[in-house]
Amino acid sequence: MADWQKITGGITAPRGYQAAGITAGLKPSGLPDLALIFSEVEAIAAGVFTTSQVKAACVEYCRQRLQAKHSARAILCNAGQANAATGTQGYLDTLESAMALGQALNISSESVLLASTGVIGQSIKMDALRSGIPKVVAALSETGSDAAAGAIITTDLVTKSIALETTMGERPVRIGGIAKGSGMIHPNMATMLAFVTCDAVVSPHLWQQMLARAADRSFNSITVDGDTSTNDSLIALANGQSRTPAIIEWGAEAEKLEAMLTAVCQHLAKAIARDGEGATCLIEVEVTGAHDEISARQIAKTIVGSSLVKSAIFGRDPNWGRIAAAAGRAGVPFEQDNLQIKLGNFLMLENGQPLQFDRTAASAYLKKAATGAYLQEDTVLISVNVGNGHGVGKAWGCDLSYDYVRINAEYTT
Amino acid sequence: MADWQKITGGITAPRGYQAAGITAGLKPSGLPDLALIFSEVEAIAAGVFTTSQVKAACVEYCRQRLQAKHSARAILCNAGQANAATGTQGYLDTLESAMALGQALNISSESVLLASTGVIGQSIKMDALRSGIPKVVAALSETGSDAAAGAIITTDLVTKSIALETTMGERPVRIGGIAKGSGMIHPNMATMLAFVTCDAVVSPHLWQQMLARAADRSFNSITVDGDTSTNDSLIALANGQSRTPAIIEWGAEAEKLEAMLTAVCQHLAKAIARDGEGATCLIEVEVTGAHDEISARQIAKTIVGSSLVKSAIFGRDPNWGRIAAAAGRAGVPFEQDNLQIKLGNFLMLENGQPLQFDRTAASAYLKKAATGAYLQEDTVLISVNVGNGHGVGKAWGCDLSYDYVRINAEYTT
Repeated sequence: MADWQKITGGITAPRGYQAAGITAGLKPSGLPDLALIFSEVEAIAAGVFTTSQVKAACVEYCRQRLQAKHSARAILCNAGQANAATGTQGYLDTLESAMALGQALNISSESVLLASTGVIGQSIKMDALRSGIPKVVAALSETGSDAAAGAIITTDLVTKSIALETTMGERPVRIGGIAKGSGMIHPNMATMLAFVTCDAVVSPHLWQQMLARAADRSFNSITVDGDTSTNDSLIALANGQSRTPAIIEWGAEAEKLEAMLTAVCQHLAKAIARDGEGATCLIEVEVTGAHDEISARQIAKTIVGSSLVKSAIFGRDPNWGRIAAAAGRAGVPFEQDNLQIKLGNFLMLENGQPLQFDRTAASAYLKKAATGAYLQEDTVLISVNVGNGHGVGKAWGCDLSYDYVRINAEYTT
Repeated sequence: MADWQKITGGITAPRGYQAAGITAGLKPSGLPDLALIFSEVEAIAAGVFTTSQVKAACVEYCRQRLQAKHSARAILCNAGQANAATGTQGYLDTLESAMALGQALNISSESVLLASTGVIGQSIKMDALRSGIPKVVAALSETGSDAAAGAIITTDLVTKSIALETTMGERPVRIGGIAKGSGMIHPNMATMLAFVTCDAVVSPHLWQQMLARAADRSFNSITVDGDTSTNDSLIALANGQSRTPAIIEWGAEAEKLEAMLTAVCQHLAKAIARDGEGATCLIEVEVTGAHDEISARQIAKTIVGSSLVKSAIFGRDPNWGRIAAAAGRAGVPFEQDNLQIKLGNFLMLENGQPLQFDRTAASAYLKKAATGAYLQEDTVLISVNVGNGHGVGKAWGCDLSYDYVRINAEYTT
């Protein structure tokens, strides 16, 4: 169906990009903690950032940079300290980091974007960062995507990466992406971060619009625990190195590029939900029949974010009443006489009336889903219809297990 | 400070009320499951109900009754089946219940209000209800409050009850209340229910306004798991039997009555949060410096509802970064440079700058709080200031423990 294919290479699959990930000594664990993404030419840059009123210094920095100019050449990401709620010193540290990287790469510091993840309230260990910058620059390579993906994670269980390729004007166009996040899995280890590279030739305005919509249909449609981080950042570069026809207005090519960008973002978003803290399965909720896409997504997000729905799925309990209750409190008006609920292929409520169904078989359907093996079959599908509208929306999340509580509580200070 | 005092008697403390609670055979457990509250004269009645789009039949019924006339004499509440998402049959059952109770009490069925709690998707066992009605009417007594409080609970660990008395025109005025709810503690056992009786002489219009504000400052400011039930109902009767001066406009007496009503509702609401599923302590969040009360409460509710804050408190971890992050995502604009966070008496963030504090002592403060003993000292106090506004708001909740997950997941169908 999709007119693109999966390829290897992650963020270095598109032409003209290099990446690296090294251990700079920022994480106490000694694991890789400094990542760099570099475009050989100035790239169009778009960003979507946390809506929190409490923003990390790097988020403030990137927003200002991208308002001033819609392009960049480098993204530096540190893991270990979030540099959020760090006051004036935190902001000064971002400025110094950008200057140091600009010098090391011999580019303007205005072409540097920054991201951080780690403990809120802790400033970046600047000594480690200063000595790490020349090393991460030296490590840049056209096969460095996996190293970068490994250096941005905190307590994620797996790295998240993808690359897709399509054809435009008979030449390949590629989008790659890496991401981190599994809820605020480790105490204070906040943050969802995603970096996307693309070699298409596209106008800054269109690229930002595409990214905002793709974010709504992917990262903004996942929830692990409902807690928005202070550092959430999605940054997408497009450097034009595919040398394909320029996309400067809406049309078939723009739609194709946006669809591929959305697919990259959805892959990474689902990978984050699947790796949610303590998760044993991925939950996908599809809502149909709503007035519009936003309403449908709102209901889907409320269902997939419900602690009661999440713990029922963990208990492998086909407890549709909780799905109905969550749909009802989503803040979207609908007639409850139109409500229809399906779990997998099991129809449980139709026209607002409860139906008989095979509870044992429905429970067995839930038991089959498990992320342990990281299979395609790890997904629990919940389908809800709320009326006759054309609005369709999806959201993704994970179940709520003992391990969620353990991970977030068993931390002695 | 408050010019009222606690008295015994619950909902039968105000003059002219009787109550009863019996076992009608609605709950599989054989525990009491049918409660009746009766006013000897027609009482002013006000109600606040779930905002969910999926409403129980009894909620639809009460809303219609209270729109048609603002008075009632009886409230019948069954526990066991929620009668929500039960379609047409569910509504017919409520009509039959009201008619049967009206006949048994020899009053108009239009003076009967109804509430249900239990499994969503299950209709009331009408055979049991029909034979239970004469018994619960026969059991009515002026000391029946505890029996009624015991018959409305599902898997609550304790009953919730209070009565307050003040003086108006040199005569006593009393308000009593009972409530149930501890999150949707048992699988599908949804619902927060609260019933308030009062013997003041007050106009229907003022009484409804007072109740709506009191609900916002109490029941609408608690969260256990963020899941709004299909059956949530707060009903307050005022039967005028105190024979005190009529309150028909705003003034000192009206304010006094509203303050006492709010105190009753807050007591019951905190009792529900304290009895939250798996809770080990009560969490109180006070937000000051916001633009208005609604903004302050919004931030307080977001903090007390954050899974990360809740699990940090369960782990006795003075993890203020999560409080900052939750405040930031509450949807209320503020300057993060003004943010101040206190846990108990420990100041952790001031003017957006992290402070040094005694982590061991702060953790010890958290360890002291425990609901086990149901002490006054079970409360963890979080104080947040977001600026220079006059808006102050409070919210209450509980921590997130392994038992929350166990209670909601370990249910095999």
